[in-house]
Amino acid sequence: MARHVNTAKTADPVSGPVSGPVSNPVAGPVSEAAGLSSGAIRKRIRIGAHDAPTAGLAAGKLQCNLAILPEVYALDFLRFCQRNPKPCPVVGVSDTGDPMLPTLGEDIDVRSDVARYRVFRDGQLTAEVTDISDLWNDQMVTIALGCSFTFETALVRAGIPVRHIETGGNVPMYRTSLDLEPAGDFAGQMVVSMRPIPEHQLDEAIAISAKFPQAHGAPIAYGDPAQIGITDLQRPDYGDPVDIQPGEIPVFWACGVTPQNVLQAARPPICITHAPGYMLITDVAEDAETSIYKKQTNKE
Amino acid sequence: MARHVNTAKTADPVSGPVSGPVSNPVAGPVSEAAGLSSGAIRKRIRIGAHDAPTAGLAAGKLQCNLAILPEVYALDFLRFCQRNPKPCPVVGVSDTGDPMLPTLGEDIDVRSDVARYRVFRDGQLTAEVTDISDLWNDQMVTIALGCSFTFETALVRAGIPVRHIETGGNVPMYRTSLDLEPAGDFAGQMVVSMRPIPEHQLDEAIAISAKFPQAHGAPIAYGDPAQIGITDLQRPDYGDPVDIQPGEIPVFWACGVTPQNVLQAARPPICITHAPGYMLITDVAEDAETSIYKKQTNKE
Repeated sequence: MARHVNTAKTADPVSGPVSGPVSNPVAGPVSEAAGLSSGAIRKRIRIGAHDAPTAGLAAGKLQCNLAILPEVYALDFLRFCQRNPKPCPVVGVSDTGDPMLPTLGEDIDVRSDVARYRVFRDGQLTAEVTDISDLWNDQMVTIALGCSFTFETALVRAGIPVRHIETGGNVPMYRTSLDLEPAGDFAGQMVVSMRPIPEHQLDEAIAISAKFPQAHGAPIAYGDPAQIGITDLQRPDYGDPVDIQPGEIPVFWACGVTPQNVLQAARPPICITHAPGYMLITDVAEDAETSIYKKQTNKE
Repeated sequence: MARHVNTAKTADPVSGPVSGPVSNPVAGPVSEAAGLSSGAIRKRIRIGAHDAPTAGLAAGKLQCNLAILPEVYALDFLRFCQRNPKPCPVVGVSDTGDPMLPTLGEDIDVRSDVARYRVFRDGQLTAEVTDISDLWNDQMVTIALGCSFTFETALVRAGIPVRHIETGGNVPMYRTSLDLEPAGDFAGQMVVSMRPIPEHQLDEAIAISAKFPQAHGAPIAYGDPAQIGITDLQRPDYGDPVDIQPGEIPVFWACGVTPQNVLQAARPPICITHAPGYMLITDVAEDAETSIYKKQTNKE
């Protein structure tokens, strides 16, 4: 089932050397999956019947960034995430060697239930595939991290414009000068995403996103990009530039590309992530107090 | 510096066989430490000049439950905490073998900066001591967990009565029938604390505590205690019973005794916790968005 792509250079985690439909992770066709439940979409993905980005699918359900790595790295990576909760909000951790993620939903098999994966060996992107069953082994640990889709949905619902959604592009992302708290081999600088927000809606945008600590929470900064080491907003390191209109302020949120960069830099012998935009769709409500899925027969 | 106490039986984590001043963890004398900064109190504790519970000290700073255990258990214990975030909100994790906790404050040495510790061997309480330098080794990992002091302060500030604070007792706590999500050797049922809340302030109490996911968050349940397996509110498993007055509803929050029970049941060869009421005082503001301490020169 694995489909391999060109693999020559170190990958940019979002808009890197992988060509073709992968390079536009957000604007892709939502396809016939729109309107399906989270479980139904995962079933389609599992059998190879859905190969498109997941933005806008399974409305109201938490979607996740994924990091799959050998157990020997898992404790340090979890420490890293705990110390950097804004870019790395952990929402699920598998047992070692167990491909299932019962705390995130019903019958989630992480080997097959994500539409596209990226495989890194010694920090180099070596393949992009649609199934990782042949790569899974009894030392693998899956760590799922919250993503910005959650607060973007909430912003749009509150009538706050989100430019890159309006334009159908990918959110612009930037490397910053903000040092991360290191743990073991994991260290580096934070990557942020930027959304221009009308000045009169800034406080509301901050308050809304702060309600979602498992999806990067409140912004890291707003206003002058130089304060966090960004030199040119029109030249994002990943994603597509967007216009900042009169009366709008650039607002910077911690970004899930951060842990991907940090993982690559640590150069574990193998590490697997989702492909950008092709997120794991869970059964957890994105406004739930915790990311722990409870069957309907069980109450919390 | 270590002071040993009677150690015969399996310890009740809060009101167990340890005799003397330890048995009343909340109502103890605040002493001359009131008004000191978090760092100043830790310095007094470090030199043995403060031997009292920490409730009410270092107003506005996050206080923590502690679990110190061998690295071989740390990954599973962190998984357990991630899967049970309401009773086990992780706010800090040390490097393996490093007694310092830089993400929680300045110069925090976990071997000496907590006033009292409990030492468990194979799940049995074997000692209560004021310093663990002689027990520390290069395999130890410290995990700090949020505690209910944080939301209690917020409730009192909002004019919501907290009965056990009014009466000077320890909060009543109960074993429940709520199964925890297991991880490795860690499993069991949730322990909850109970506070009677006037019915007209129930919604506000829920909303206020929900703002503190790192301090147990919103209640687990309210009303009929039988729904969570509690048979008699006047016979708490730990702590002191409180009156429920006309117009008040018993409200149940996930409790930090949960991980202590689970740790004991897993019977690691050694495990060290704080003594109940003798918490780690951090430099992190208890209303901060994350529990990660930043020096004043660094902004997030």
